This record gives sequence, C-alpha cells and structure tokens, in this order.
Amino acid sequence: MSSRPAHRHTPAALRFVLEGSGVWTLVNGDAVHMAPGDLILTPSWSWHEHHNPGTEPMIWFDGLDLPLVRNLDAIFFEPGGEELSSYQPALASRSEDCYGTAGLLPAADEPVIVEDPATGRSSRLLAYRWAAVDAALSRLTDSTGQRAAVIRYADPATGRDVMPTMRAELHRVLAGHRTQTTRTTGSGIWVVYHGSGATVIDGRRFHWSAGDMFVTPSWAAVDHEAADDADLFLLSDWPALAALGLARTRQAGQRQDVVAEEEGRGSACG
Amino acid sequence: MSSRPAHRHTPAALRFVLEGSGVWTLVNGDAVHMAPGDLILTPSWSWHEHHNPGTEPMIWFDGLDLPLVRNLDAIFFEPGGEELSSYQPALASRSEDCYGTAGLLPAADEPVIVEDPATGRSSRLLAYRWAAVDAALSRLTDSTGQRAAVIRYADPATGRDVMPTMRAELHRVLAGHRTQTTRTTGSGIWVVYHGSGATVIDGRRFHWSAGDMFVTPSWAAVDHEAADDADLFLLSDWPALAALGLARTRQAGQRQDVVAEEEGRGSACG
Amino acid sequence: MSSRPAHRHTPAALRFVLEGSGVWTLVNGDAVHMAPGDLILTPSWSWHEHHNPGTEPMIWFDGLDLPLVRNLDAIFFEPGGEELSSYQPALASRSEDCYGTAGLLPAADEPVIVEDPATGRSSRLLAYRWAAVDAALSRLTDSTGQRAAVIRYADPATGRDVMPTMRAELHRVLAGHRTQTTRTTGSGIWVVYHGSGATVIDGRRFHWSAGDMFVTPSWAAVDHEAADDADLFLLSDWPALAALGLARTRQAGQRQDVVAEEEGRGSACG
Amino acid sequence: MSSRPAHRHTPAALRFVLEGSGVWTLVNGDAVHMAPGDLILTPSWSWHEHHNPGTEPMIWFDGLDLPLVRNLDAIFFEPGGEELSSYQPALASRSEDCYGTAGLLPAADEPVIVEDPATGRSSRLLAYRWAAVDAALSRLTDSTGQRAAVIRYADPATGRDVMPTMRAELHRVLAGHRTQTTRTTGSGIWVVYHGSGATVIDGRRFHWSAGDMFVTPSWAAVDHEAADDADLFLLSDWPALAALGLARTRQAGQRQDVVAEEEGRGSACG
Repeated sequence: MSSRPAHRHTPAALRFVLEGSGVWTLVNGDAVHMAPGDLILTPSWSWHEHHNPGTEPMIWFDGLDLPLVRNLDAIFFEPGGEELSSYQPALASRSEDCYGTAGLLPAADEPVIVEDPATGRSSRLLAYRWAAVDAALSRLTDSTGQRAAVIRYADPATGRDVMPTMRAELHRVLAGHRTQTTRTTGSGIWVVYHGSGATVIDGRRFHWSAGDMFVTPSWAAVDHEAADDADLFLLSDWPALAALGLARTRQAGQRQDVVAEEEGRGSACG
Repeated sequence: MSSRPAHRHTPAALRFVLEGSGVWTLVNGDAVHMAPGDLILTPSWSWHEHHNPGTEPMIWFDGLDLPLVRNLDAIFFEPGGEELSSYQPALASRSEDCYGTAGLLPAADEPVIVEDPATGRSSRLLAYRWAAVDAALSRLTDSTGQRAAVIRYADPATGRDVMPTMRAELHRVLAGHRTQTTRTTGSGIWVVYHGSGATVIDGRRFHWSAGDMFVTPSWAAVDHEAADDADLFLLSDWPALAALGLARTRQAGQRQDVVAEEEGRGSACG
Repeated sequence: MSSRPAHRHTPAALRFVLEGSGVWTLVNGDAVHMAPGDLILTPSWSWHEHHNPGTEPMIWFDGLDLPLVRNLDAIFFEPGGEELSSYQPALASRSEDCYGTAGLLPAADEPVIVEDPATGRSSRLLAYRWAAVDAALSRLTDSTGQRAAVIRYADPATGRDVMPTMRAELHRVLAGHRTQTTRTTGSGIWVVYHGSGATVIDGRRFHWSAGDMFVTPSWAAVDHEAADDADLFLLSDWPALAALGLARTRQAGQRQDVVAEEEGRGSACG
Repeated sequence: MSSRPAHRHTPAALRFVLEGSGVWTLVNGDAVHMAPGDLILTPSWSWHEHHNPGTEPMIWFDGLDLPLVRNLDAIFFEPGGEELSSYQPALASRSEDCYGTAGLLPAADEPVIVEDPATGRSSRLLAYRWAAVDAALSRLTDSTGQRAAVIRYADPATGRDVMPTMRAELHRVLAGHRTQTTRTTGSGIWVVYHGSGATVIDGRRFHWSAGDMFVTPSWAAVDHEAADDADLFLLSDWPALAALGLARTRQAGQRQDVVAEEEGRGSACG
C-alpha cells in the first residue's frame, strides 16, 4: 500500500489511466476511483492525493501544464495535512453524481459564464469513464457512417475544455481508414490506447501500437492511418492558444505524401 | 394512424410526455421517439412534424412561448412539404447520438458562446429520457442525503437553458418532506408526473396527485409538500427574465403559514 | 421650481431631451444635467428624481420598457425619502468622469462579462451629450464618404446596449439621400431632432420635420429620405428580441416602391 | 526620411511614444500619426509599416508578446509588398473616427462577444491620445478626491484589454502620495513618462524620474511614491494569466517596510 499526501498547486494535471486497478484519488475531498481508459482531473489549486491500497502498480499518462505556468511565473504550491486520507472511495464520485448525465444539471448551476480570474475554470466533472467514451464514439461512427470520430472531453455545465490550459480528446480511427491531413497551432501528445497503425508528421511516417506515445509539433501536417481499430488519446494546449488569439487550423485538400518511414525510438533501442 | 405535416414557426415548443407509446416527432430531419416522462424539444424555427403510427392516443403537456413571441410581434410561420415524413424512427435520435453523454462532445463543437441574434440558441439535445432523469435525481438525493432535489434540463454543449425563452426543471420531493418557501419573478406551470401532495401558494394550499397541473404566479411564495414520493415537472419563463435583467429570487427564512385550504378546480367541477 | 421625489422601479427609462435648460436628474446619487439632444438614462431599479430649478418647462421624449416588464409580471416599485434632493449639479456627472473617454476605463473595471440575473445590465454611462453625438456622426460621414450614418448608444465598458430591454440609435441622413430599405423584427419609435424628410413604411410615405415622432411596426419595410440634413433618434426593443433568439433583419436589394402618400395624423387633425 | 516596409506577424506590438513628431504608422491600411504620450497598437497578424518623413528620430517604448508566442510555438510571419506606403496620414485614423467617442459605436457593431479562436481579439481603436488620457486621469482624481488614479486602455466596443496577451495602464500618482502595497501574478514593465519618485519592490526602494524604465516580477510586493506628480505607463501580461486561470492579486493591509535603498543601474553606470 502506498499513498501521496494531500497538497495543491497551480499547475493542473490530468491522468489517462493505462493499467492497474483499485487506485483512487481524492480531489477536494471527492474520492475518485481510477480504472484503465478513464480520464481523471486534478484542476489547478485543488487539494489532491493518490491512494493505492493494493500491491500492484497502476500506470497512467500524467499530463500537466507545468511548462506554461512556469513560463508565466505563476507557480504556487501548498502542502496539506493528513486528515483527508481516511475517505472510503465509492464507485462514483460526487462530481459524477452531480454532473454525470448529459443535459441534466443540478438546479443551482446557472448557465452564466463567470470567468473569475482568480479561481480558474476547470471542469466540474472530475472523471470521464472509458465505458462512456467507448459508447459515445461507437454511436458517433454508427450515426455518421464515417470511419473516424473524435470526442472532446468537456465541462458538462459549460461545454468548455476540461482545463483553461489543456484540451483532451479521444480519436477513434477504424481499421484501414486514413484521416484528413491537418495542421494546427499548439503541440500534441498522443497516447495509443488501443490498436495499431501509423501517423504521418510532415511527411515522415511513424508506426505505433497500443501503449506507445508520440508528439506532434505546432503547425506540423498530421494524419493517422489505422491498421486495426485504434483509439488515440490526445492532450494539447489548444485552449491556451485560443484564449490568446493564436489558434489556427488548416485542413489540406488532399492527404500529404509520405517521404520517409521512421522507426520509433522504442523499436530502435530494442 | 395520424400525423401532422411539416412546418416551422418562431414560437418554440417543448413537450413533456404523460401517456402513450409509439409516437415520434421529426425535428429538422431527426426522428425522435417519444415515451412517458421524456422531454422533447422543437426549437424556434425548426422544421417539425408528429407521427402516431398506432391507434392509441399519446398525451403530452405542450409548452410554448407563444404569448411572449406574440407580444414582441415576432411570429413567423412557414408551411413545409410532405417529403420528410418517410423517416424510420430509431430508438435514439441523432441529437442523442451526438450529445447524449455528459462531458463528451463531438470535437467540432467549440466551447465558444456565439449568441447569433438571428438563429436562436436552443439546446442541441432534443430528447431528455425519463430513465436518465430518474437516475440523476436518485443519485442527487443519495449523494446529498437530502429529501428533495431539482435538476435543470440544459444544453449539454453550453449548459444553457433548453430554450432562450423557457426553462424546464424536474423537482423531486420525497414522502413527508416540505420544501423551502421561495419567491421568484416569472410564472411557472407545474405538471405532477408521480406521487401526491400539496403546494402552498401565497398561503393557500392546493392538493394534487399524478396527472394534475397547476400554475404559480410571478413573485408568489411557493413551497411543496409530498405525501408520496413526488416528481413535478416545471416550465417557467426564467431565461427571458434573466436575459432582460428582471430575474429575482428570495428564499424565506422559514416556511410560510397556510391560511386557506383549496380544492382544485378539477375537483370542484367534478 | 418643481421636482419629483426619489423613487425606483424595475421598468427602465431613457430620455431624449428636446427643449429647455437648467434641469437635472439624480440617478443613484449622481447629478446629471440635461440639455437638448442629450440622452439620459435611469436604469432599472436605480433611485432617481428630477429637478427643474427654473420657471420654464423642459420637454423630453421619455422611453420606457413598461409594457414588456408588465407582460412579464416583473414590476417592482419602491418610494424613497427626501434626503437626496439637496445635491448641486455639476456640468459632468460622476458617470461621465469615470466612463466619458473612449477606451479608457477605471482600472477596477474588469472586462469580464458577468450577467447577474438579479441586478440588470444597464450602461455605466448615464449621459450621452449631443455635442459628442454630433461630432461622432460627422466623423463617420467624413471618414466613409457616405450620405448616411448610424451610431448606437452603448455601455463604454462592455459595448452592450444601454439597457437589456432597449436600444437607442441616432440616424443621420444628409439632404437628398434615401437609405436602403430594411426590415427588422421589433418595433421602433422615431423622434425627428433636426431637418425634414419622409419615411416610407410598407409602401406608404410619411413626411416629417423637426419635433415630429413616428413609429415603425415589427418587420415593416422601412427607409428614410432627407429633404434637409436630418437627425432621427430611434428607440427600439431589439436587445430583448436578440436575447430571446427572435432578432431578424433583411435588407432589400432595391428600395421599395411608394404606393401611397400619407398626411401625418397631426396635420390631418389640424 | 526612413521607413519600414509592410509586413505582418502573429506577435502583437504596442508602442508608447516618448519623444519626436511627424512619424506615422500604417495598420491594415489605416494611417495613424504618432506623438509623445500616445499609445499605438499593431495587433496580431495586422499589416503594418512605420514612416518617418522627417530627419529627427522618434523614440518609443515597444512592447511585444514575443516570448509568450514563441513559447507556444505560434509565430507566423509574412512579408508584404510596397504598395501601401503612399498613404497621406490624417490627424485622426479611421479607427479613431469610428471608435473615438465613449459609448457611441458604429451601428453595425453588435455587442456580441465572439471569441474567434483563429483571428485574435485586439482593440478596434488603434490610437489612445495623450491629451485624452491626461484629461481622463484628471477627471478621476478630481471626481474621487484621491491622490492616485489608474486607467486601463481598453477596446471601446467590448471593454476588453487592448490585446488578448497584454494589458496597458497609466498610473498617475500625485506628489507626496504613496500607493497601497499590492501583489499580482504576471510581470510588469513600467515606463516613467512624467515626474519623479520611487517604487518599492519586495522591500527594496528604486528611485526613478521621467524617461526611466523598471520591471516588477510576478507576485512581488509593489508600491509607488511620487516626489513630483508622476505618470507611469505599465505593460503587463495580466490578460494571459486571467485567460488561463492564473491571475491572482493581493492587497496588503499596510504598506511594506523598506529594507534597502537601491541605486538604479543607469545611475550606477553613470
């Protein structure tokens, strides 16, 4: 059994769980259990701590906006006490009890956008469960008849991104499909959750399979091709660029040429 | 079998289904089946038509913002052709496929609030199913330990009310509980969906049971008491008052006195 | 000397001064002097009283949103005491001291749009002086080389309309010019402040000169033709329609035909 | 005579003029003359070029958001042709003709906040003249009776900061007054335009006079004391911090102690 004691800081974190079970995190007193495929938030300046009551490790992808917050000289940190760690985790967090159904909000939540500059603007929902994501993507591909679909994780009470600094998306590409070639400002970190395939980045093709990660630089031409049905988790800094008037995107009329085949670094070292 | 041909108009409508089955409505080409307890929207200026392929009637509560739109001299009406009526309804509408999961939005939906004055601002989700409402209310009462809970129906992509002119809520009051006495500007129309109890309006107590309707005038003191577990659907014009700077609310420190017991008009006429 | 004692009410008023001098109004303790051509606001629920220390009358056009507020059952009224009437009016009100220069705001005013549903959203600037309006219109016609210009009175801190329920505009049409034919939802009340000319409303031409007033119904085809350089003050309910998703406008490709010449009712009764 | 040819880039610039005359800049085809004390904007991705038809230099403080845009990997640059440089500058730019009067907007400008992530959100007004700033500050100190006043440069059509990445303010401190001690996140660059005095930064006092510049780090305790009436121009990155949920401010209950007297680096090198 291991745990990390409560603390809070202005850099925000999100975690996409890859392996393990039984772990839970406590966010401002709300116990959130974690399972593979779930996206779990610890918003800026929220008290949080992690608990693994078992003996097996859990592995997650941990995304923070630390470089941006550091560049802006806005890092604050506060250690907490020990008194919060005795919670018993339930299967659903309070945030899921309150915000877990589409279009049904606790009545006290007014649809007024108040952008309090001092308190941040993170999602009220702290956990996005894989089963719901999987079903939503299946409905989208079934409904549209298309071979690819993208969902954006959002605050159910405002539709805004999960954090003011970070966007999270899940890209599903069905076997044999290649997506449109697109450029966007801002960089992306991709986690392959299911399947295998390749991504072409500025003409260079990188092959991947489940468990791999790769990054796409700002304004690179990017498209994906799935060998098997693939699920790619994406973390980007798009909300920061949008808020600052720097967001741009361009879709190429046709898919880019592949001019180089790359071996991933993992393979190269193997 | 009966149907209403396609048409559209600027007054918006919402329908809370009370009895029947097999009926569906077509909203801008999206087939939406209807069942008891569901809330179904036909937003301002959307093409719509209703179909009952069976032989039994369906009964719903039909709420429109017609008086307000007429007062503002803004009624437009356009009849449509017959070509839309051949759709086969699926169990879930396209709007539910796209917006039916809390916090998971199609990626094209940017979290930007654009208040286009010409096109209205209604919810992207057209159907709110009773099973989801029922479960959300149960989670709220379980999670808070309180004997009453209220959910507001909202656009899952913005959190705003279902219509710019109308708010819809579901109030659950558990057996034996009496709610706080509250005043709000704007009028309310209440539909008793489950249970029985009474509502005190400016000191006068009105008893109700499933299938009854009653209204509460602007700024009246209002509270509810449930004899059995009760579900009350509320339609109000709060969003219009809020948009115009006229929304006010006040919660009394204690529950109002009951100075008169009223028989409902339905009973009096019986 | 005459005065009206302090009171406040939820219906909002705006006043476009036509004749007289020396009168001032007190709005939430801010003394605002009044002169011909000025637009003066008394926002919803603001304390106000009017003072005429002289012996000559002042004449103004008084625009209220009373019908809309009454239709929404949201009228509140509160009488005040006598203690506010001893103020000495300065040439510029506090609101002009703080918000009277374009693009220069008191630093405490954050550019955050908080739509508090309970307190209204009226302009921080209470007086718009004729000399400034006149100069702004001259700069617009000089800058664009066009024979007509329209300015909208706005909150200098947000750009929004002066009231959530009412829009005010000043339309200048130079001698000999006829404006485009336009339809909008919502009704308009027009006050001729300078010049003479005619307005065509759904094919009927009405002649006017300084001091006349006329109205244009919702969705009527409207254009103006100036015989002399003309200034027309317009009060409309556009913000209410826009907030409720009912605002529409259409500009005709060419000017409408005139099918009838109308004598004004005043002339007809003379 | 010298000039810089037209070009555009995503980093935005603002210029606070210190000395010189006769110079003008062309921003998207709008000729803007420059004089001491004026703040002149060249928003992100606007075509611009500078012209000095005379023989004397002009000196200005040039503020750019280049470090932030570079950190976000969002720099774009496009060189332009030569054809724009034949404009004759008028005393007032088109932007001043259209947006130069408080609360009076061209009627086409709707008060709708559309945050287009692709096009930026800079002020419609490109020039803020010193005479107007000086008069606005005098009215504020006269109206409030206080010995210090701050105005924020804003978009007259929305009230938002001049750039999504940068805030500009003018701080006036009258002789003998010391301001409250305040901490804010984000860094500040200060330009002393008039007067002399000192600024205490985390307990160290720095003396300054007209023409000096100094910087204040994020979260430093800062207050100013004027020996003569002083005008301090401030450029900060507050809007970026606010948009990202990182803006914080704290006002100390009393003024900080001075623990060290510093000689400015300029003096030390003299």
